[in-house]
Amino acid sequence: MEFFVENARWIVSVIALGGLVFAFRQRAWVMQQDAGTDLMQEIARAVQQGAAAFLRREYIYVAIFVVLVSALLLLLSSTEGFDLSPWTVVAFVSGALASGLAGFFGMQIAVRANSRTAQAAAKSLDGGLRVAFASGSVMGTTVVSLALLGIGILIVVLSGVAATGDTLGIGIAQNKSREAQAYPLLIAGLGLIVSIGCTFLVRTQEGATQGQLLGSLRRGLYTASAIIAVLMIVVALLLDLGIGVAVAAIAGLAAGAAIGFSTEYFTSDNYRPTRHLAESSEGGPAIVIIQGIALGMLSVVVPALIVIVATLAAYTSAGLYGVAIAAVGMLSTLGITLATDAYGPVADNAGGIAEMSHMGSEVRARTDALDALGNTTAAVGKGFAIGSALMTALALIAAFVSVTGIRQINILDARLITGFVLGGMLPLLFSAQTMTAVGKAARGVVVEVRRQFREIPGLMEGTAKPDYARCVAISTDNAIRQMILPGALAVAVPVLLILGARLARGTDFERLLGAETIVGMLIGSLLVAFLVAVLMANAGGAWDNAKKYIERGNLGGKGSDAHKAAVVGDTVGDPFKDTSGPSLNILLKLLAIVSLVMAPLLK
Amino acid sequence: MEFFVENARWIVSVIALGGLVFAFRQRAWVMQQDAGTDLMQEIARAVQQGAAAFLRREYIYVAIFVVLVSALLLLLSSTEGFDLSPWTVVAFVSGALASGLAGFFGMQIAVRANSRTAQAAAKSLDGGLRVAFASGSVMGTTVVSLALLGIGILIVVLSGVAATGDTLGIGIAQNKSREAQAYPLLIAGLGLIVSIGCTFLVRTQEGATQGQLLGSLRRGLYTASAIIAVLMIVVALLLDLGIGVAVAAIAGLAAGAAIGFSTEYFTSDNYRPTRHLAESSEGGPAIVIIQGIALGMLSVVVPALIVIVATLAAYTSAGLYGVAIAAVGMLSTLGITLATDAYGPVADNAGGIAEMSHMGSEVRARTDALDALGNTTAAVGKGFAIGSALMTALALIAAFVSVTGIRQINILDARLITGFVLGGMLPLLFSAQTMTAVGKAARGVVVEVRRQFREIPGLMEGTAKPDYARCVAISTDNAIRQMILPGALAVAVPVLLILGARLARGTDFERLLGAETIVGMLIGSLLVAFLVAVLMANAGGAWDNAKKYIERGNLGGKGSDAHKAAVVGDTVGDPFKDTSGPSLNILLKLLAIVSLVMAPLLK
Repeated sequence: MEFFVENARWIVSVIALGGLVFAFRQRAWVMQQDAGTDLMQEIARAVQQGAAAFLRREYIYVAIFVVLVSALLLLLSSTEGFDLSPWTVVAFVSGALASGLAGFFGMQIAVRANSRTAQAAAKSLDGGLRVAFASGSVMGTTVVSLALLGIGILIVVLSGVAATGDTLGIGIAQNKSREAQAYPLLIAGLGLIVSIGCTFLVRTQEGATQGQLLGSLRRGLYTASAIIAVLMIVVALLLDLGIGVAVAAIAGLAAGAAIGFSTEYFTSDNYRPTRHLAESSEGGPAIVIIQGIALGMLSVVVPALIVIVATLAAYTSAGLYGVAIAAVGMLSTLGITLATDAYGPVADNAGGIAEMSHMGSEVRARTDALDALGNTTAAVGKGFAIGSALMTALALIAAFVSVTGIRQINILDARLITGFVLGGMLPLLFSAQTMTAVGKAARGVVVEVRRQFREIPGLMEGTAKPDYARCVAISTDNAIRQMILPGALAVAVPVLLILGARLARGTDFERLLGAETIVGMLIGSLLVAFLVAVLMANAGGAWDNAKKYIERGNLGGKGSDAHKAAVVGDTVGDPFKDTSGPSLNILLKLLAIVSLVMAPLLK
Repeated sequence: MEFFVENARWIVSVIALGGLVFAFRQRAWVMQQDAGTDLMQEIARAVQQGAAAFLRREYIYVAIFVVLVSALLLLLSSTEGFDLSPWTVVAFVSGALASGLAGFFGMQIAVRANSRTAQAAAKSLDGGLRVAFASGSVMGTTVVSLALLGIGILIVVLSGVAATGDTLGIGIAQNKSREAQAYPLLIAGLGLIVSIGCTFLVRTQEGATQGQLLGSLRRGLYTASAIIAVLMIVVALLLDLGIGVAVAAIAGLAAGAAIGFSTEYFTSDNYRPTRHLAESSEGGPAIVIIQGIALGMLSVVVPALIVIVATLAAYTSAGLYGVAIAAVGMLSTLGITLATDAYGPVADNAGGIAEMSHMGSEVRARTDALDALGNTTAAVGKGFAIGSALMTALALIAAFVSVTGIRQINILDARLITGFVLGGMLPLLFSAQTMTAVGKAARGVVVEVRRQFREIPGLMEGTAKPDYARCVAISTDNAIRQMILPGALAVAVPVLLILGARLARGTDFERLLGAETIVGMLIGSLLVAFLVAVLMANAGGAWDNAKKYIERGNLGGKGSDAHKAAVVGDTVGDPFKDTSGPSLNILLKLLAIVSLVMAPLLK
């Protein structure tokens, strides 16, 4: 076993490289598929152009951000009193690079898989599912492989230079034994292998119902979970860490699956809540909104209870280390979870291409089925994402507490309580901004589309082509500009609080602001962001599916008053589920990571 | 000074009796006013019958509840291991009785002041304002007087029997010195006197604008606040408590006023947010909903910051005792704050009577102005209510912590963290139920109204009278039935957690459930209930006023598409601001009080 413990970082790096090889092979397989008729390829090319324009713009802004933050981190690391290793900058830049690469590869294959999925669906449902899912698995495997490769390399480098990398352990460093540090690495590596293997279980037969299609995806996901659960026990016993560590990992894994299940229950029209919401649309738009928000509020209960049970199980089995391990456990199936998630937009796009290229009705029926499946998996993916963000943030907060050493605390300390209130307020302030950002960004595009129709001759008649890239550039610019304020908030609040707390040290203001404030802020924001994100994702998903349920001919079908009301719900739900809800994950991870990087200041 | 300290309980009781005498005199004055024409009196009688039927029904349910809880408390007080004084039952029953009496008197005068306000408004705006406000002051003064009388008598009785009444001190008993205990009593008593005096400052002149009318109410409220602030300092110095205690009291007082101000800014169409919301209604119902929710989220920021500043100020000036004193300070002007709040429905009703009895347009303009004023004061009253509920609950939690003795705590204790999540979830579960309760209760009334039209001969033609009482009975029954589940939740959760924690003591389950869980639950629910209540109250108020703004002829006026969209917003806002939002105050006070009563179990 000593070999595995000693070389966990190498093992995980090799597995990650293998994952990348697999991703390239999957990509090659997708590219070999028939890309369809000329018309289909032309539509796909328009999507590709738009996507490329989007990424180009986005990466310019991200590059500026990365340079600025790197400069700031370098400055801090050379400042007296900041116990910040210059390797933090290396870690930051490699993380940004890995994230950028994963986004690039994922986007690149997704916009090429769409017409191929439509063409494959022309032959069989299974063909369509496999092409779309293979492209999703490129994204899933690339993200996880690059992340693991980054971690592996960083550990190799850092242990080489013996840096003071305490704050860099992504919460793992709580338990200092080498076995305890090797465990999450090995689980993550094994998780990637199992995820890759189980992607091949995702297949279906002709005429499959929505339930059967969901069953195909579940087969892949649940088989992967079951195998990983067994491996969690085996590795824990082999490393002599005791069964408690495995219980913690399995608690996280099971919690992820359970949250996904609960999300499905609240957002799929197979179940009562969304059916009931669709029926309420007969009472008009106001009733749909009230019922949708109530549904969202109610849907928070089960994930909250799941998190409570998982946290208690992980904590009692292996302490705070167990909570961090539960986060790793939840993320161990990320390879296949992300694949099911990334599958959705490809299927959606394939449906669009099938419609615009006037493919036969049986092909449309197949792409519609694949698209509807994508809606449900997207909602489940969001539930999973917020659940894992919560566990990850909890582990990061634990690391912050460990670095600052403020474990024992007066529960009614005014700094702690006011930190809670401040932190709890942040997700609402953040969501208020992101919710209105969509509308503001959209308005710019409307203006540009009108301009193009006015100024490009032949566009109205269909003889000239629109300037897609410019529309994308405008919407990207607007979207990013609208996100500057909320993004700055997530960085500025912990930075200002920590700098303030440092300055307050030894003065009378120490009683007003301290590390306790930051811990309170982190916990308060974690709590509220989790609740609001689940509420928004589920209300949005349910509104979307309630509308689709009516569009399938129920309750008067398309064009009925019930449908009009449901469209209002769906429109409100869009920023809920696609903007504000998911971006809260980023807020809470950002708050926790920024605080952790700055934590040495409050040692 | 010894005299005042020694006899604070007697002094406060005498002041309270004086308050009741004033309330009766105000009531007599209102009753002496001209009740208007026969038609006006007939309409008013219909309202009176409905109100009486409502109270009768409500009190039957409340009486059953009081008997059940009293029996339970008596049982607990005679059970081994429960350190619960039988005087708790006395306190509980007298509180219920006082609450019932205040509701009865307030309702009784309100439904008699409505036609008198309309008739007085026929002569002058000032006349209408004074009649309506006088009836509001009956409610305000009665509530505060009965509360103070109850506290005074209880302290007299309890100190007589030397009961173990630690848990009964409504968080005051933190600081055990006799002066420290006398201070809040004296401030509350003086606050009542000042509030009564300042009700006479509320008057206006003919043709006053909305801003001037608001100014009249503010004159009363702010003069009262200024005088009380001075008295807070004087009494603190006389009792030799130090200026810190006065700072804490004034912090609470100022926070209440500031929260009111912030509420006004976000919900009055004098300011940008509601104007902007009204303009967004041109984009259709979905945009109004999105913008309204974003407004509500944003509006949470200022009250949260106010609470943070007030808590820090109170805590650093006088510790946890200071936080309790801040709550008392915020409530010291309750007599006049409640009067401005209770004024609203009377003015609203007067407007209805003026309309239904076809009074002249200049009378309608006056009652409309008085009604619009009531809308703003209602929103401000809600902001004040949630602010004071937060401070009160914080003081109650402090008492819980003190009784259970779990002050020093590991901030990452799994029980604490899971308690947070559980507590944070409760307000959402509670709101989900109360939001849909309104709709369910309303449906029963619709059925009954249809039945009456079908079965009562001559009703459709206007020659027969509808059976108001039955409609009220049905809606009351439904409303109360719908509230049983959320109400039971607020009682059951702390009871079950505390019983569970007691049983877990000394077993392995001690690590899963303990007093830490309950503290976490209380703080988590406090945080989320505060945020959600402010969000809902302000979004609801802004939607209401945005609609009214359009109805006054802006943005196309009544009947325009913008108006239709604004009506959707207003309809969503109704359960937000009138049901779910305000009932969250009750949830958080109930959770804290039930926990505190049960706290001795976890000593």
